[in-house]
Amino acid sequence: MAKKTFAVILSGCGHQDGTEIHEATLTLWAIHKSGCKYLCFAPDIPQHHVLNHVTGQEMPEQRNVLIESARIARGQIQDLNTFSAEKFDGLVIPGGLGAAKNLCTYATDGPQCQVDKDVAKAVKAMHAANKPIGALCIAPVILARILKDAELTIGHNDKVARDIGIMGGQHRSTMQEEIVIDTAQKMITTPCYMFDARVDQIGRSAENVITAMLELM
Amino acid sequence: MAKKTFAVILSGCGHQDGTEIHEATLTLWAIHKSGCKYLCFAPDIPQHHVLNHVTGQEMPEQRNVLIESARIARGQIQDLNTFSAEKFDGLVIPGGLGAAKNLCTYATDGPQCQVDKDVAKAVKAMHAANKPIGALCIAPVILARILKDAELTIGHNDKVARDIGIMGGQHRSTMQEEIVIDTAQKMITTPCYMFDARVDQIGRSAENVITAMLELM
Repeated sequence: MAKKTFAVILSGCGHQDGTEIHEATLTLWAIHKSGCKYLCFAPDIPQHHVLNHVTGQEMPEQRNVLIESARIARGQIQDLNTFSAEKFDGLVIPGGLGAAKNLCTYATDGPQCQVDKDVAKAVKAMHAANKPIGALCIAPVILARILKDAELTIGHNDKVARDIGIMGGQHRSTMQEEIVIDTAQKMITTPCYMFDARVDQIGRSAENVITAMLELM
Repeated sequence: MAKKTFAVILSGCGHQDGTEIHEATLTLWAIHKSGCKYLCFAPDIPQHHVLNHVTGQEMPEQRNVLIESARIARGQIQDLNTFSAEKFDGLVIPGGLGAAKNLCTYATDGPQCQVDKDVAKAVKAMHAANKPIGALCIAPVILARILKDAELTIGHNDKVARDIGIMGGQHRSTMQEEIVIDTAQKMITTPCYMFDARVDQIGRSAENVITAMLELM
């Protein structure tokens, strides 16, 4: 059997303005641990902003989502506008506020958010091909905004759960390391750093997502 | 028994100009998986340079090692000049070229490199206190430059191995996931991304280092 190949969409490098680094790294780790392969993607767009991760304050500079994401991907990354659903068996979107600031505008616009066009195109193409999609932490809001009746989790944050309902999704409360599997739509979600967490819990969460995705392939 | 606490020295965020992200994340993961705690440190200094991780080209900007390292540490980070050996049971330095560009000047000066004063102070203080020190990937060159007769590995790169000898260290060739334990000096080293590697191999390497350090505490 050929090795399964995952596409991973990154949104920068650092949880306050980009991809959550532990979630992304442990997603890649879980993919390799399962004997599978990955290729990372990110949109070639400016970051919403750049935050100093010591102070949380905005920094007067601009960074590019693709270029910063490449730090996590070690160069194994392509512009998301080249994504082709045919080449992949599954798609994963790790969290971090970059998912809600760069991949879509949820952080500023809530349930009326816009999703980046290449992100929407990739998610819809995988969904249309009946291939599994995983999303960690805050990234499930992207799925709720794009797909109808998505059953998913971001843990148990009342505000975000309500917003998911407004967008037409069905939120399920979960604890750390639990996953929600929308079997009909092949979506797997888990809260990760939507809660305080130890890094090994993030590892088990990522592994649970990848394992569930493999069972749906 | 009280939880053991590790100090982790970071050197930025991204393997070409800072800390190797997978090595750092999986070091933190291995520490938590062992039921232990960590606090990250980095020097509050400018990076040697900033590289575009897609193209490898230098970017016309300046970044700060402490601020960028905070992206990996999720804010659990302090200026290395506040480090106190009394508070920690072990010290780990993940790799990435930041270890050879920001924590010391090995990347440009080879065996005549200078080590950042706070890095040198932290390593010497832990060594004097007979506490274990772990180093991944290229980071062992720092130990070779500071401590006498360090027995260590960076895998099997002839040039770096020879430089370690010039600095007074004893290099031992290893394969991926193997560690070298200098029992007398309580140093544990492993090659990681000095070789091509899968992310799960980096996880096992980091876990091997942390496990060996715990046995020396």
